[in-house]
Amino acid sequence: MTSTLLTVPSRHHDVVAERVGRSASSAQGALMATPRFDAWLAQRHAANEFRVDRVPFAALDGWSFASGTDNLVHHTGRFFSVEGLDVTVSADTHGVPGDVAPSWQQPIIRQPEIGILGILVKDFDGVLHCLMQAKMEPGNPNLLQLSPTVQATRSNYTKVHRGADVPYLEHFVRPDRGRVIADVLQSEHGSWFFRKSNRNMIVEATGDVPLRDDFCWLTLGQIGELLRRDNIVNMDSRTVLSCLPLPDDYGRARLTDTELLSWITGERSHYSVHARLKPLMTLDGWRRGEECVEHEDGRYFKVVGVSVSAGNREVKSWTQPLIEPVGQGIAAWVTRSFAGVPHVLVRARVEGGFLDTIELGPTVQCTVGNYAHLPSENRPAFLDQVLRADPARIRYEAVHSEEGGRFLHAESRYLVIEADEEQAPTEAPQGFAWVTPGQLRSLVRHGHYVNVQARTLLACLNTAAAALS
Amino acid sequence: MTSTLLTVPSRHHDVVAERVGRSASSAQGALMATPRFDAWLAQRHAANEFRVDRVPFAALDGWSFASGTDNLVHHTGRFFSVEGLDVTVSADTHGVPGDVAPSWQQPIIRQPEIGILGILVKDFDGVLHCLMQAKMEPGNPNLLQLSPTVQATRSNYTKVHRGADVPYLEHFVRPDRGRVIADVLQSEHGSWFFRKSNRNMIVEATGDVPLRDDFCWLTLGQIGELLRRDNIVNMDSRTVLSCLPLPDDYGRARLTDTELLSWITGERSHYSVHARLKPLMTLDGWRRGEECVEHEDGRYFKVVGVSVSAGNREVKSWTQPLIEPVGQGIAAWVTRSFAGVPHVLVRARVEGGFLDTIELGPTVQCTVGNYAHLPSENRPAFLDQVLRADPARIRYEAVHSEEGGRFLHAESRYLVIEADEEQAPTEAPQGFAWVTPGQLRSLVRHGHYVNVQARTLLACLNTAAAALS
Repeated sequence: MTSTLLTVPSRHHDVVAERVGRSASSAQGALMATPRFDAWLAQRHAANEFRVDRVPFAALDGWSFASGTDNLVHHTGRFFSVEGLDVTVSADTHGVPGDVAPSWQQPIIRQPEIGILGILVKDFDGVLHCLMQAKMEPGNPNLLQLSPTVQATRSNYTKVHRGADVPYLEHFVRPDRGRVIADVLQSEHGSWFFRKSNRNMIVEATGDVPLRDDFCWLTLGQIGELLRRDNIVNMDSRTVLSCLPLPDDYGRARLTDTELLSWITGERSHYSVHARLKPLMTLDGWRRGEECVEHEDGRYFKVVGVSVSAGNREVKSWTQPLIEPVGQGIAAWVTRSFAGVPHVLVRARVEGGFLDTIELGPTVQCTVGNYAHLPSENRPAFLDQVLRADPARIRYEAVHSEEGGRFLHAESRYLVIEADEEQAPTEAPQGFAWVTPGQLRSLVRHGHYVNVQARTLLACLNTAAAALS
Repeated sequence: MTSTLLTVPSRHHDVVAERVGRSASSAQGALMATPRFDAWLAQRHAANEFRVDRVPFAALDGWSFASGTDNLVHHTGRFFSVEGLDVTVSADTHGVPGDVAPSWQQPIIRQPEIGILGILVKDFDGVLHCLMQAKMEPGNPNLLQLSPTVQATRSNYTKVHRGADVPYLEHFVRPDRGRVIADVLQSEHGSWFFRKSNRNMIVEATGDVPLRDDFCWLTLGQIGELLRRDNIVNMDSRTVLSCLPLPDDYGRARLTDTELLSWITGERSHYSVHARLKPLMTLDGWRRGEECVEHEDGRYFKVVGVSVSAGNREVKSWTQPLIEPVGQGIAAWVTRSFAGVPHVLVRARVEGGFLDTIELGPTVQCTVGNYAHLPSENRPAFLDQVLRADPARIRYEAVHSEEGGRFLHAESRYLVIEADEEQAPTEAPQGFAWVTPGQLRSLVRHGHYVNVQARTLLACLNTAAAALS
C-alpha cells in the first residue's frame, strides 16, 4: 500500500495479469528444470523421516471426547474440534434438487480461526516464479506434496504448539511486505468444515529471498505440468493458485457479469439453509467406536486418529484426529465453447458448512458410493455423462488429495470433459450456469463464490495444466 | 438472461451505467414535476388513514414472550422474533478499537429469510425513471415515505398474513422479468438484526407498466432532490439506490482495487467475532417491563409494541413489536480529494449481527449519547471533527430514518464533510481507508462489503443529492 498524495494510480494493474500469463506459459524454470523436480522431491523425502500410524482415540495425546457432548477436543481448547452439525435445507421456487437431502446430521470440524495460505512470487529472468515447499502432511497418500510458501494456522503463528517459526511468514503479515497480487478469504470444504475460511495470498517479493531447505522456485507452467500428475500439488497450493489474476482474452460470456451475479443472488435467495452445531453424541445415524466415529451404514466419512513423526515440521511428533472419507470423490467440469468462447458449467451447491448458503462448484462433485443405495432420480445430474465420457473428450484428468492436515487419503478424481448440445444443453438446467474462466477469476477475487473443489479446477486452467477449446 | 448460441455478449454493459448517470443529472421528470411531489404525497396521505399507537406487550395480538426463553415471538413462528445475542470481539495484530466493547449482550431481531427490495425502472423521453411508492411504515416519524416499487418479506409473498398481492412483484420474481440492472444480497443493520440480508434489485421493465395509486415515476435526479430533505426517501429505497451502476469518471484511486480488497481481507482476518443467540431472559444488563425491554442504564434502544391501522397496507390493522433507539444517530463520511480524485474515508466496522465479521461503514457511525459515560479514548475517532465541523465544509446533511417496519423513529443525521490533512490525514489511521465512490460501487455489486448506513451515503452520491469535490 505505497501511495502518496501526488500519485493516485489506476485502480487496475493489468500488467500483473500479463506477467502471470507469461509465467503460466513458461514450461522452463530459471532455477530448477522440471526433470530435476522428482529427484529433488525424493531427496527432500529422504532428508526427513516421516511416519504416520493409525491409533485408537485413547492413544491421542491431549485429545479427548468432552464429557456431556462427546465433542472431540484438544485440552487447550485450541487447534480444532470435531462436533456435530444438524442441517435442514428448504427451497422456494424450484425445490431442493433430488441429490440434496432435505435434512441430515453429520460430524464436522470446527476451527473458528483464519489461517494464511501464501505463495511468494519473484521475477527470475523476466518470469514470475513461485516459492513452493515440499511439505509433509499426515493425511496425504504420499505424505510429501508441494505446498504454498506459507501454510500457517493462527495457532501456528501465535505459537500454540511451541514449535519453530514459520519460514517466510514475514512476507505475508508485515506491513512492509511486497506487492500484493491476490488476498482473499476463501472457504474450505463445506461438507467437512463449519464455516472455515483461509486467507489466500499471493505476494511478490521486492528484495532478495534466501532459499531454504525444502523450498524451490517454479514457474506457473512448471506447476501446471506437476498438476497433470496425481497427488503432487497439495490442496492449499491449488486454492491459492486459483486466485491468480489473468487477462480475459475474450471479454465475452453467455451471461453478462450482471446477469451472472443476479443468477447467484437468485440461487442464494432460493435456498433456506439452517445449520446448527450440536453435540457429537446426539447425532442420528453416527456411532463412536474405539478407533473411529462412523456412519452406521458405512457411508460418507469416518473420524479417526493418527500418530505422526516428522523431521521438518515445526514440532517433531504429535497425534491428531483426521477425517477419512469413504471412497474416492469425483469433481468434474463439463465444458463447451459458445461462439468461440470457452465456458464451464458450474453448479450452485448447498453444503452444510458454508457461511452463505451456496457456492459455485464443479458440474459434478460427489462420492459415487454415497448414492449407490438411492434411486436414479437422487443421483447427481451429469454424473453418468461424466463417468461414461468418451476418453477423447477428456481435456484433463488427475487425482488430487484434499488438505492433508485434516483429511486422511481424501482423494478426488478431477476432470474436465468437453460436451456437446446433447450432453450439456446450451440452456443450462435449473441450478447450473455456463460461465467463462474469466468470470470465475473475477468471482474468486471475493470470498464465498467458488468452492474449494471448483478452485482446484480453476487452478488447473490458470497454470495451463488444463486447456479449454 | 436472454442469450443464444450465436450471440455471446460482452461481459460488461457500460451503456447502462451511462443511462443511470443521465437520469441522475435529470432534475426534471417526464411524468411528475418535482414541485407537484409534495401535493401528491399529501394527497396519498389523505387518501389513506394511518394511525400508530404504542401499546403494552400484553396488547400485542399473536405476539408473546415464549416460556423458557422470554424471546418475543409470533404464534405462527413467522415474521420475526426478538431474541438475545452475546458478542465477544478479539483482535490480533492491532487490538480492538477503543470505541468497540470487547464483549456485550443485547436483544436482536432474528428474521432468517430474504426479502425483496426492488425498484422498477423504465425509459420515458430517453431518461430512466424509477417507480416509487408512497408507503406507510409504522416506525417512520412521518409515517408515509417514498419506498421502492416492491418491498416484500418472504412472509409477504408467501401470504402468511393472508393480505392482498404485492403489486409489481412479478417484475422481480418471474423468469421473464425485464433486464436486471442490479441484484445483490445486502446486509441490514448489524446492530439490530442477526445476519439479515435482503435482495436489492433494480430491474428495467420491457413493456408497458400500468401506474397504480400510491405510485409515481421519478428520475434519479428528482429522488436526489428529495434525498436532500429529511425523512422523505425511506431506507429500503436508499439501499437499493446504492446499488446503481455508474461510470467511474476517474478510474484512479489511492489504493488499487487489489490493495483495497487486501486491506478488507486483512481487517476481516484481524478480528475474531463470536456472536451467538441466547434467550432474551438471560441477557445481562437488560430488563423487561410491561411496555418495553430496555437497558438498565437507559442506553442503546428499547423493544416496544405498537398497534397500527392503515388503509393502503395489505392488511388493514395489526400489532407488532418495534425497536426504538435511544437518541438520534450520526452517520458521516469525511471526504478529501487526492490529485483531483474525490475519496471518502471508510471504516472497517464490527457489528454483532454481521454475517462476516466486518463491513465498511461511514467514517463515523454512532449514537453520541451512548458514549457520554465513557472516557474520551472510548469515543469514536473523528466524532469530534464531525460534530464541530465548519458549516462551510458540510457537503451534505439530512436526517433519514431507518426501516420503519422494524424501527420506531430511528433517525440518523447523515453528513458528508470535506476535510483537510490536519482533520483527516492522507495516511488513513488503522481500521480506516480512503476509497473512491467508484470503488464502493464495485464493492456493492457483492454482499457484505458496505453496511447499510454507508449505502445511504452512497445513494446520496449516486443520485447527485451530495456531490464531492
